[in-house]
Amino acid sequence: MTTNNLFLEDLTIGQKFISGIASVDEYLIQEFGSQYDPQPFHTNKELAKNTFFKGLVASGWHTAAITMRLLVQSNVKLAGGLIGAGIDELRWPISVYPGDELHLDIEVIETKKSASKPNRGIAKIKVLTKNQNEAIVMSYVATLVVQSKINIKI
Amino acid sequence: MTTNNLFLEDLTIGQKFISGIASVDEYLIQEFGSQYDPQPFHTNKELAKNTFFKGLVASGWHTAAITMRLLVQSNVKLAGGLIGAGIDELRWPISVYPGDELHLDIEVIETKKSASKPNRGIAKIKVLTKNQNEAIVMSYVATLVVQSKINIKI
Repeated sequence: MTTNNLFLEDLTIGQKFISGIASVDEYLIQEFGSQYDPQPFHTNKELAKNTFFKGLVASGWHTAAITMRLLVQSNVKLAGGLIGAGIDELRWPISVYPGDELHLDIEVIETKKSASKPNRGIAKIKVLTKNQNEAIVMSYVATLVVQSKINIKI
Repeated sequence: MTTNNLFLEDLTIGQKFISGIASVDEYLIQEFGSQYDPQPFHTNKELAKNTFFKGLVASGWHTAAITMRLLVQSNVKLAGGLIGAGIDELRWPISVYPGDELHLDIEVIETKKSASKPNRGIAKIKVLTKNQNEAIVMSYVATLVVQSKINIKI
């Protein structure tokens, strides 16, 4: 386990991070689909053939969940953890298929101290989830609550 | 199983839908957390006490996944299924705790025919996920791909 040691003051606009790789197999797609997005194109390989997607694809929320795990396990080790206040511009430009291997490109695009709470601020990060062909399967901007170094004294 | 029978032409701005109720228990929070958002405030009741949240809370992505299931099981029965192109303005204003019971308020806020593809269009829906006290725990605007009635002839 790596120590979580990045504070607001350690983040700079344009700073980039990367993640490890997550494999998405047929079983996982159907397990998540059955539990959280029970539609034939996420739960049944045969029935999926006659749908908009023409085959089994991962739920977009499954891709989002896998992305979160990659983010937690990446080198974006924020003090206090990864705490999201919100997400903007979430897009799923292409589908995630069984056998895909996903990884992230992460970039800090904004940092701001809180006006009311001196011990914290927010950072906006742009997250691109890419498949094994470097095609973007999901993108979003996350607003994270980040601790300020003022906290260290406590 | 209800037939999926709503087409773009059946949706009007201001039209409202509701969902059933989903219970969120401690086990489910920790199961999702361990698999997709492995941070102490989502995976371990004891360790969670010393975090930003002061106790166990659901991953925001878990709330999003539960919201998707409620949406699929709601009376928003779109022909072809619920196919998301993107999400905007996703916010998690308050936490989801073990024992919470969630339900949705859903409203159509925009519909548009596709300029290039006459057999489909998009609908934007505002989704509010509320707890048992009617407090909003998550909100977003989803852009859905919706079939047009022109499809019926095919």
